[in-house]
Amino acid sequence: MPSVSEKGRLMPQSPIRKLVPFAEEAKKRGVNVIHLNIGQPDIKTPQVALDAVKNNNLEIVEYSRTEGSEEYRQKLAGYYAKNDISVTAQDIIVTTGGSEALSFTIGSITDFGDEIIVPEPFYANYNGFATAAGVNVVPIVSSIENNFALPPISEFEKLITDRTKAILICNPGNPTGYLYTPEEIGQLAEIVKKHDIFLISDEVYREFTYDGRKHYSILQENGLEQNAIIVDSVSKRYSMCGARIGCMVSKNKEVVRTAIKFAQARLSPPTFAQIASEAALDTPQSYFEEVKEEYLGRRDLLIAELSKIDGVKIGRPQGAFYCIAELPVSDTDHFAQWLLSDFNVDGETVMVAPAAGFYASEGYGKNQVRIAYVLEKESLKRAVSILKQALNSYKG
Amino acid sequence: MPSVSEKGRLMPQSPIRKLVPFAEEAKKRGVNVIHLNIGQPDIKTPQVALDAVKNNNLEIVEYSRTEGSEEYRQKLAGYYAKNDISVTAQDIIVTTGGSEALSFTIGSITDFGDEIIVPEPFYANYNGFATAAGVNVVPIVSSIENNFALPPISEFEKLITDRTKAILICNPGNPTGYLYTPEEIGQLAEIVKKHDIFLISDEVYREFTYDGRKHYSILQENGLEQNAIIVDSVSKRYSMCGARIGCMVSKNKEVVRTAIKFAQARLSPPTFAQIASEAALDTPQSYFEEVKEEYLGRRDLLIAELSKIDGVKIGRPQGAFYCIAELPVSDTDHFAQWLLSDFNVDGETVMVAPAAGFYASEGYGKNQVRIAYVLEKESLKRAVSILKQALNSYKG
Ligand SMILES: Cc1ncc(COP(=O)(O)O)c(C=O)c1O
Ligand SMILES: Cc1ncc(COP(=O)(O)O)c(C=O)c1O
Repeated sequence: MPSVSEKGRLMPQSPIRKLVPFAEEAKKRGVNVIHLNIGQPDIKTPQVALDAVKNNNLEIVEYSRTEGSEEYRQKLAGYYAKNDISVTAQDIIVTTGGSEALSFTIGSITDFGDEIIVPEPFYANYNGFATAAGVNVVPIVSSIENNFALPPISEFEKLITDRTKAILICNPGNPTGYLYTPEEIGQLAEIVKKHDIFLISDEVYREFTYDGRKHYSILQENGLEQNAIIVDSVSKRYSMCGARIGCMVSKNKEVVRTAIKFAQARLSPPTFAQIASEAALDTPQSYFEEVKEEYLGRRDLLIAELSKIDGVKIGRPQGAFYCIAELPVSDTDHFAQWLLSDFNVDGETVMVAPAAGFYASEGYGKNQVRIAYVLEKESLKRAVSILKQALNSYKG
Repeated sequence: MPSVSEKGRLMPQSPIRKLVPFAEEAKKRGVNVIHLNIGQPDIKTPQVALDAVKNNNLEIVEYSRTEGSEEYRQKLAGYYAKNDISVTAQDIIVTTGGSEALSFTIGSITDFGDEIIVPEPFYANYNGFATAAGVNVVPIVSSIENNFALPPISEFEKLITDRTKAILICNPGNPTGYLYTPEEIGQLAEIVKKHDIFLISDEVYREFTYDGRKHYSILQENGLEQNAIIVDSVSKRYSMCGARIGCMVSKNKEVVRTAIKFAQARLSPPTFAQIASEAALDTPQSYFEEVKEEYLGRRDLLIAELSKIDGVKIGRPQGAFYCIAELPVSDTDHFAQWLLSDFNVDGETVMVAPAAGFYASEGYGKNQVRIAYVLEKESLKRAVSILKQALNSYKG
């Protein structure tokens, strides 16, 4: 019997995947599982996007252009302009989710055995895309003590080798909720220019910033044009994760030309989803204000409630809709599973994402979980109360 | 300035891409370009699929399951059963086009430096996906003299090394139109089992077979279950290329488990397109009969007309909607460009796909073009007439 590739063996499982059977088991036993583990917003997709799909007049669902439809890319350039990011349609490749933008980016700038430096904890699938490309993620640990701010640049300097092709950040961060300051972006700009490497910024949560903080994109940083690559997505912005539309943005023409070759191989991004995404650009500003208001309220509630639990440590997320919480347990993999298989309060329990999966360094994050606040406040409050009672009865 | 990857440099351009500016130029001069170069059918998408999308009631466009929605996979298993292919939903991973099925397959079974043997001429993007994975396509030339039938198995034997992980066929073939016989599939089954490697069969044109010939899938071959991987797609079957839905099918559980890890990294296939694809499974049989009838008529017309041109050699395609034609010119790259930039008949010219891009062996296919018959008969007839006149005036 022929066997799978070494790379296939190395491909990481999603950090939540092994918990899924336990969640299904719990549901079968009649237990209601409150999901704190997912990044799928519960917010409605803007009506204008849904309507565009419902009212489409296609008779043949054709391939679009490889780079995405011209109209959509033109309008996207307008969206970036409104966000003080000056790009043209030619700098944009429409992709099948931010996911594909990540894989095109990695393919375009790295070869087998190359390295990408990533502050951890990080979006777990970075590891998947890197592994698929035979590239090594070199982690630099950031710490809950300072909200997962950028580690000192000297730490990056120590890790840069001649195989280092890029530094990859997520801004605002999943799973940390950290929002990089213009000063931090400036420091990163300096080091990538000094070493002639790329700075990749995953900005799929751009809109979700709190406490009056404004997002600062790497493409707002002067002089970084040739080094900067943005990964973007409509998934969270318009709560339409299932559309599968994202984009890759760079002013480096060689990068764009190269990425287009990867894009050509897969022909085109999805057509219905581009219709939805183009229409979504007309979403009224009030939608975002309401959504941000909602997330902000949830974040404040979550932080307030978690802070009341003895032995729980949390950062103060300023963006996205996640936070990392440190729990008074030694192995959150086990705890998360126990929550599903051995615990409930009045027929209800919670599912959390063990944080070890967000670290590449062995042994880190074992007492942390990621909590997503994509639930209504009421459920969120109940979930934290269940978590509190669970921590009381759990004897790790 | 940081530079792109070696792999990015090696990524092939689409064989048609460099002609596009010349086609655009021609259009600007008012010349009507008849496209014989594309694989985008002009056939209408089944109404049942279009309606399902128009009538969808989603309020939140959520991620679907990584493997594709359970209902869709269940129904797909039923589709395969009707085609005498016995698989369950667990053997199927829904992908973003057949394209993604190809890249998951290659990722799951090959490592950097491995080899996949492919009869040529082949679908050009095989090279793209292989290059992206750092894998080498090892070609075996098949010949227009016998309609691009399977090369002798002894030729395969000569090329198998310990880096060979699979043989990849396209059945029916793009660009050849060749339909493999059960005997040929049997020979391939024998050699892959003997060498403990995989047989990947791209069956995205399964429905399009002519002259009473029936498609024989590798999953109909007894005893091949552990070696067989099918790449499939709704793109051509339902003329909905822009949906971006395909699937990977295998009874080898380790392969499926591994491919799911690649699938997890990109989260899910597109949701609207799955709605369309699931509904498309209810397309009435009459649709396919009409479509096949139409393609058959076009094929017969195309072959008949091409045969009348002096010095043109053609195979007899029995499937898909392409054929390779050998022209009395020495460099079809140049000829194809000349057709766009220097020739027209009453303000009309044709665009063809030079065939060198479908070969991995240097120097092959230079006097061949691929012609797709996805145009109405009238245009097709006019196109061949223009080609004939062009060959007369072209002095290579
Ligand atoms: C940080 C980050 N980047 C990228 C993605 C990929 O999302 P998509 O492919 O849906 O755009 C996600 C999804 O959760 C994410 O959290
Ligand atoms: C032979 C073959 N395989 C795979 C594909 C990929 O198609 P898709 O990704 O649209 O399913 C094509 C498209 O032309 C093809 O001709």
